[in-house]
Amino acid sequence: MGQRRERRMGRRRGAQAGDPEADTIARIAQPVHRLPVYELASDEALDLIHRSALEVLSDVGIDFYHPEAEAVLKAHGVRMDGATAYFDREMVAEYVAKAPRSFTQLARNPERNVIIGENYLTFAPVYGPPFVYDRDRGRREATLVDFQNFVKMTYHSPWLHHSGGTIVEPTDLPVHTRHLDMVYAHARYSDKPFMGSVTSAENAADSVRMAEIVFGEKAIIENPALLSLINVSSPRRYDDRMLGALLTYARARQAVIITPFLFSGAMAPASIAGTLVQLNAEALAGIAFAQMVNPGTPVVFGAFQTNIDLQSGAPVFGSPESQIALYVSAQLARRHGLPFRSGGMFASSKVADAQAAYESIMVMLPAVLARVNFVLHAAGWLEGGLTAGYEKFILDEQLLGMFHKFLDGLDVSANGLALESLASVPPGGHHLGTEHTMRNFRTAFHRSDLFDYNSFEQWFEEGAQTAEERANRRYKQWLRDYEAPDIDPALDEALRDYVARRKTEIVPARD
Amino acid sequence: MGQRRERRMGRRRGAQAGDPEADTIARIAQPVHRLPVYELASDEALDLIHRSALEVLSDVGIDFYHPEAEAVLKAHGVRMDGATAYFDREMVAEYVAKAPRSFTQLARNPERNVIIGENYLTFAPVYGPPFVYDRDRGRREATLVDFQNFVKMTYHSPWLHHSGGTIVEPTDLPVHTRHLDMVYAHARYSDKPFMGSVTSAENAADSVRMAEIVFGEKAIIENPALLSLINVSSPRRYDDRMLGALLTYARARQAVIITPFLFSGAMAPASIAGTLVQLNAEALAGIAFAQMVNPGTPVVFGAFQTNIDLQSGAPVFGSPESQIALYVSAQLARRHGLPFRSGGMFASSKVADAQAAYESIMVMLPAVLARVNFVLHAAGWLEGGLTAGYEKFILDEQLLGMFHKFLDGLDVSANGLALESLASVPPGGHHLGTEHTMRNFRTAFHRSDLFDYNSFEQWFEEGAQTAEERANRRYKQWLRDYEAPDIDPALDEALRDYVARRKTEIVPARD
Repeated sequence: MGQRRERRMGRRRGAQAGDPEADTIARIAQPVHRLPVYELASDEALDLIHRSALEVLSDVGIDFYHPEAEAVLKAHGVRMDGATAYFDREMVAEYVAKAPRSFTQLARNPERNVIIGENYLTFAPVYGPPFVYDRDRGRREATLVDFQNFVKMTYHSPWLHHSGGTIVEPTDLPVHTRHLDMVYAHARYSDKPFMGSVTSAENAADSVRMAEIVFGEKAIIENPALLSLINVSSPRRYDDRMLGALLTYARARQAVIITPFLFSGAMAPASIAGTLVQLNAEALAGIAFAQMVNPGTPVVFGAFQTNIDLQSGAPVFGSPESQIALYVSAQLARRHGLPFRSGGMFASSKVADAQAAYESIMVMLPAVLARVNFVLHAAGWLEGGLTAGYEKFILDEQLLGMFHKFLDGLDVSANGLALESLASVPPGGHHLGTEHTMRNFRTAFHRSDLFDYNSFEQWFEEGAQTAEERANRRYKQWLRDYEAPDIDPALDEALRDYVARRKTEIVPARD
Repeated sequence: MGQRRERRMGRRRGAQAGDPEADTIARIAQPVHRLPVYELASDEALDLIHRSALEVLSDVGIDFYHPEAEAVLKAHGVRMDGATAYFDREMVAEYVAKAPRSFTQLARNPERNVIIGENYLTFAPVYGPPFVYDRDRGRREATLVDFQNFVKMTYHSPWLHHSGGTIVEPTDLPVHTRHLDMVYAHARYSDKPFMGSVTSAENAADSVRMAEIVFGEKAIIENPALLSLINVSSPRRYDDRMLGALLTYARARQAVIITPFLFSGAMAPASIAGTLVQLNAEALAGIAFAQMVNPGTPVVFGAFQTNIDLQSGAPVFGSPESQIALYVSAQLARRHGLPFRSGGMFASSKVADAQAAYESIMVMLPAVLARVNFVLHAAGWLEGGLTAGYEKFILDEQLLGMFHKFLDGLDVSANGLALESLASVPPGGHHLGTEHTMRNFRTAFHRSDLFDYNSFEQWFEEGAQTAEERANRRYKQWLRDYEAPDIDPALDEALRDYVARRKTEIVPARD
């Protein structure tokens, strides 16, 4: 049905004429979810969870550890007891309603702007791992080169719409200035939208300045250029670092994702409904707060949730309980009229093996059916988020392509029904080479060019490779083939100047 | 919410007191789907597909290559032109309505009877592969020992409710009598329900006789003891072998699954809606025919569907298009008021790697959400169904356990909401060891005992094993631990006598 927004674009400069990949990178846009959404919980169950969350907000309270935040809350009539904020029911509804239902995030290439919210899906790579893994070198600490590599691979993929944020921690760089190198890498090695630093108010301010350099001061107030990740220090606590970043971004009208970070059984009760009550309360508190800081600030209702293994305390990804939480969190976000972030290709496994793949799809397929608007960690996640896997990234990316095709839905046009063609093939005959098949040859079925569909004999003769082995070759090929998107040399110089100047200004405290 | 039917059962005889596995095998029953079902297609789209299928049935026709079948069709007013049957719309509705909405299939252990239809799910192992694979010996032709091994592993698993049929082809046995050894293995090495042979009318008759020996002649007419797989030789053709088996089973009132076997682009149009039209027409023709043979015969609406890669002609499993077909086929089956069979842990991959796992869940999770009543191939499938994988079986089985827990749904009882416990933990505290956590310790979260949730260091020190390597150890452990269920020695002797006598009667034609 062609439900994706297909945008016409010129070929990337420098690409070979007739290079199909160059075309693909340019052409694919974010998918639009026009299928029915899977609504797991009944309206009554949702009501009960929401009412319970309002009770938590008014009677139990949420802590905000930041003097400015406390002042903002007080000034807007929130009852404070020390750092603990108690929100009235009506107040929550009033402020949450000020957030937009959806917004456009700017990309350096305006053809790659993304819509966050409503029926649009956005896929971004893994965020946060201090380690990387590949088959050749095993697991090791991530470096700036790894960071740049993942930016480049994300740029290369037609199925990732967003460059993400701290794809990996570049541990070879000083802690206090590495945010500058990360933001620069996003702006230079890709032209897709990206995220800002949240490690402090100052680093958030640097991110905003660099966004102003790229997009202009006025432009980023009209449409945000940064979408940044504010995690709740669950249970029921916003820390000063996150609040500093949140204040900075909200004042600059840059988008934030307010995300309770919950392992049921550890930071939340050992039950899914209880976890959802807490998640809803924590997220709504932060969202209402952001609207007090600057009404209309684009915010995303976030849900990072899974459970621990109660026997060992280890986090478990892809669990059946986390699937249920994901579906119901999405229902809560829709009820609030807010864009929603959740899901990802989560895995506990250390390598891109069968366990990693089972776990990943057990989260990602529900994320698609639940219509998650922003899927962080949509490619590359391993080892509970401690490691970004090169091969895992390539494999996950293949699946993202399949989800795009899934969301095209069922075509019941005359061409889709194909009745004449059906009747034209006799019993025992076949549809290979029919006029209908030839006409639909390129579009009928999505094709993975990495998965193995060969005969056993051919597969065996070609080295009996596992999917991980094929992905290893593929990621190296992508990095060899990578060509940076064009950038105005003056813009590049301005960004480099800013980074250099700030590095001399920031006196790093020793870690 | 404890929505599963939990049955109390004595410990297996011979099991050690306190052996938790023995308890588990006995206790788990088939899951009941009380969640909302994912309805992908609109009512209008479903109508259009169904009306188009009725048009195919009345105007294009379906071939039945069997003289007795032709006679039955004619006697019931079906217009015949040679072997081609043309069904009126009213006639289709009339005969399909004679099939029961659900039925109980008998198991040798009555505690393991299964309900096929309505909200019940039944998981059965892979069916049909001529090869087996394990990490130690690689891929090789399957033997009777392999067949017995898979029966034993299926018996061992609490998450598989059904022993299946031709789990693998025992290629070391003569073609014309191996059905006797397979039925005997199901009856002897397990006490779960099983399938009959469909390789000829005679072999189906042997299956019925052996079921009569196990269950009694009257009992199997009241509730079927066999559920057998009648594949359509698509497009639009029932062959004499399948019709012979179908006639035998329907006359003996044994259940049959009528399954169009469709690779879109080969046996069906290169479009999903067109494939669904054909699938619906083919299945309804066979189901109406079965009701003409013996009104009230238990039948299952089956859908084996995926697409080929149009470039190479190779079948592709876990494709986005096949997911859509699965959801909509399930809607058609519900519309007809019939039990539904589809799905499985399908994979094109040759080994239990990431590709195999991605592909498998991309089919199996939709099968669960679509409420498939009978999932054949729910464990062990590799290489497009040519190979049964020992490790793949073990890994798939882990996921089946997770689906059981998923179907328990969201518990919004006071214990589920856990409001007091939520409020009792201070900001920054944790729920490990709270009274609520301790009370829910065993039931809150499903736990895989095969997946790795250890730290990287521990995983590395323990050999850095992939999931496939762990599954390799596990299947050997299962086979070592296996203890056959009790069987009345007289029954065992009667079955052995029947098999021995029939082997002397059947004069095998040389292959």
